[in-house]
Amino acid sequence: MKTSFTPNLYVALIHYPVVNKEGDIIAAAVTNLDLHDISRASKTYGVKRFYVVTPLKDQKALVCRIRHHWVQGAGARYNPNRREAMELVAVADSLKEVVDEIGRNNGRHPKTVVTSARSGTRKLGFITLREMIATGTPCVLIFGTAWGLSESVLSAADYTLEPIRGYCGYNHLSVRSAAAIVLDRLLGSNQ
Amino acid sequence: MKTSFTPNLYVALIHYPVVNKEGDIIAAAVTNLDLHDISRASKTYGVKRFYVVTPLKDQKALVCRIRHHWVQGAGARYNPNRREAMELVAVADSLKEVVDEIGRNNGRHPKTVVTSARSGTRKLGFITLREMIATGTPCVLIFGTAWGLSESVLSAADYTLEPIRGYCGYNHLSVRSAAAIVLDRLLGSNQ
Repeated sequence: MKTSFTPNLYVALIHYPVVNKEGDIIAAAVTNLDLHDISRASKTYGVKRFYVVTPLKDQKALVCRIRHHWVQGAGARYNPNRREAMELVAVADSLKEVVDEIGRNNGRHPKTVVTSARSGTRKLGFITLREMIATGTPCVLIFGTAWGLSESVLSAADYTLEPIRGYCGYNHLSVRSAAAIVLDRLLGSNQ
Repeated sequence: MKTSFTPNLYVALIHYPVVNKEGDIIAAAVTNLDLHDISRASKTYGVKRFYVVTPLKDQKALVCRIRHHWVQGAGARYNPNRREAMELVAVADSLKEVVDEIGRNNGRHPKTVVTSARSGTRKLGFITLREMIATGTPCVLIFGTAWGLSESVLSAADYTLEPIRGYCGYNHLSVRSAAAIVLDRLLGSNQ
């Protein structure tokens, strides 16, 4: 699989609309280590772009500032590997903006695949999505921050990826861990 | 695999001796999100204990304070799921202390398995280790912080787990992502 194709895969990390512990719709704050960990995992698995989605001006400015430090600032000289990963980071106001941009770049809209610890409708198994990616279909994997994606995002997606099942029924991975595991299951070359 | 046995698996996150960018041996600082992410992944995959290894008094105190907040303090009431994960955290001065404690609790010493982005000697594939765990052999998975485990830790281990290969040759996952992926490869039940 490794050398046969270039995956046409994108990752979007949604900060709005997501839910809090009570189920209210909120805009979550950006977490610095999400940018580092998910950009590094994205680079490792050949993701084309990692979109950080938030409509909040100050949060968008924060993402741009972190990206700038590692791509053009002192961080790029200190750690060129980190630069390569952080170059994948892009900021977007909304998931619609992400989908439209990917659509423009590919000549067709991507399939939207939401991830959730809960089961959803239009479920997709890891192997099926792996095969779909192998056909070259543009896909965007959508992860939620806080307590997860809002119902509006979940129900509007083309597919819901089956939840990661561990060993014990405990089902509370961080979004950083979940993104790493999902990418490894879809594109790891020595599983 | 899910219901047939209880894995006898431990995780150790080493803060000393590890190397910095120049290859010097250092004691790395504890990162709060390492405790959260790796304890949550450990709980998800049935790990028995997650050892945070540092000989530094103030760093050990920090780990104990974070653990206490989530296991007995306000954090436990705010988020009981986080409590379940953080309960797995233990502090140790050295890897020797970890191995001795696991040995006492099991009546035999665990196999020590180091993880490294570089290849090592006495290499073990993921499938072989998965099988070894299934036999009930106690094993401790050893992860390094900073720029990785020191040569002394690498060479003293029983085995070196094969590096995670992604898609592109880029090989710079965070330790949080690497731990999540390794546990999923060893104990994930719907890969």
